[in-house]
Amino acid sequence: MARIDRADVINPSPIDDAADGLRRLTDLLLRVDENDPALVAVADELDRIEAALEQNAGPVEFRDPVSGRGNALAPPLDMERLPDGTVRATGSLGLPYQGPQGLVHGGMSALMLDHIFGLTHPEGSTLLEELVVRYHQPLPLFEGVVITGRRMSDEDEKVRAHGEITVDGYLAVSAEALFRDAPPPTT
Amino acid sequence: MARIDRADVINPSPIDDAADGLRRLTDLLLRVDENDPALVAVADELDRIEAALEQNAGPVEFRDPVSGRGNALAPPLDMERLPDGTVRATGSLGLPYQGPQGLVHGGMSALMLDHIFGLTHPEGSTLLEELVVRYHQPLPLFEGVVITGRRMSDEDEKVRAHGEITVDGYLAVSAEALFRDAPPPTT
Repeated sequence: MARIDRADVINPSPIDDAADGLRRLTDLLLRVDENDPALVAVADELDRIEAALEQNAGPVEFRDPVSGRGNALAPPLDMERLPDGTVRATGSLGLPYQGPQGLVHGGMSALMLDHIFGLTHPEGSTLLEELVVRYHQPLPLFEGVVITGRRMSDEDEKVRAHGEITVDGYLAVSAEALFRDAPPPTT
Repeated sequence: MARIDRADVINPSPIDDAADGLRRLTDLLLRVDENDPALVAVADELDRIEAALEQNAGPVEFRDPVSGRGNALAPPLDMERLPDGTVRATGSLGLPYQGPQGLVHGGMSALMLDHIFGLTHPEGSTLLEELVVRYHQPLPLFEGVVITGRRMSDEDEKVRAHGEITVDGYLAVSAEALFRDAPPPTT
């Protein structure tokens, strides 16, 4: 059983801590009054951090697109690859991922399932042709969710995959994807 | 033609500035070396901002789930409702939204289309039953994209909707959704 993606959070590097800080602030911002005067100072301090760090930034480079490492937008999920090739993610989702009140945004479920499908190709990336997502039961925020994705068949360079999101053992969301594998980036 | 969602960015309030700052830092973090020592200070400063702001934060409350206001995860799109009821979003997507190298994450396209479908119900939220997304052409990062969503039919409380993402006038992604409308939250 191989841990993937956020595996190295066990020995966090500086970018993991910075991305976690951004993630927590993103969450916190949804729990303060939108006109709280303290937010003016927050915006100023963020500007200052940005100006200082900008000096160390390179031009746009296209990093490993699969890993959410250092990307504060990536949902906080722990991912692993099971011996049968299934990719499994576990975690819970907070306020930034909310759609209907108290529930995970339906589009976020689609994003997570698509991302899991992408991880079933360990070397390169996948080129989606079609994604079908079915919503069976509401998916609550703050609950432990399990997301799985597995390749079902390879035909003529096309791959069919099936995925599910369960919470407390019941099926909340299922998905089917049709995609092609792309070679690893050359840069 | 009514601007929605990010309309009030024209007169930004403190939370808009703070969320924009987080958005820019999220982007910047993807352009610095992941072991850059300066990131240690960044993480410390973010911790300090968080500790100070935490004192002003209330318990988890379930705000308007449709608006991305104050949510640094929300893609930077300007949205408007056209006279025929079509919801249209325009903008461009940077590194945090990347899937395959140089391209928008397929799941992010699904998320944006689903979000647009949700906005076709002005008062409450929508409960998705099925979302089908078809990927016709690659969707590049940093290009101006136009995302539209429109209700096609209402049958027995179920709504069918069609959506598209175009870039430079060509169709990159299309989607069909089946959903029910939910009443506005009571809290």
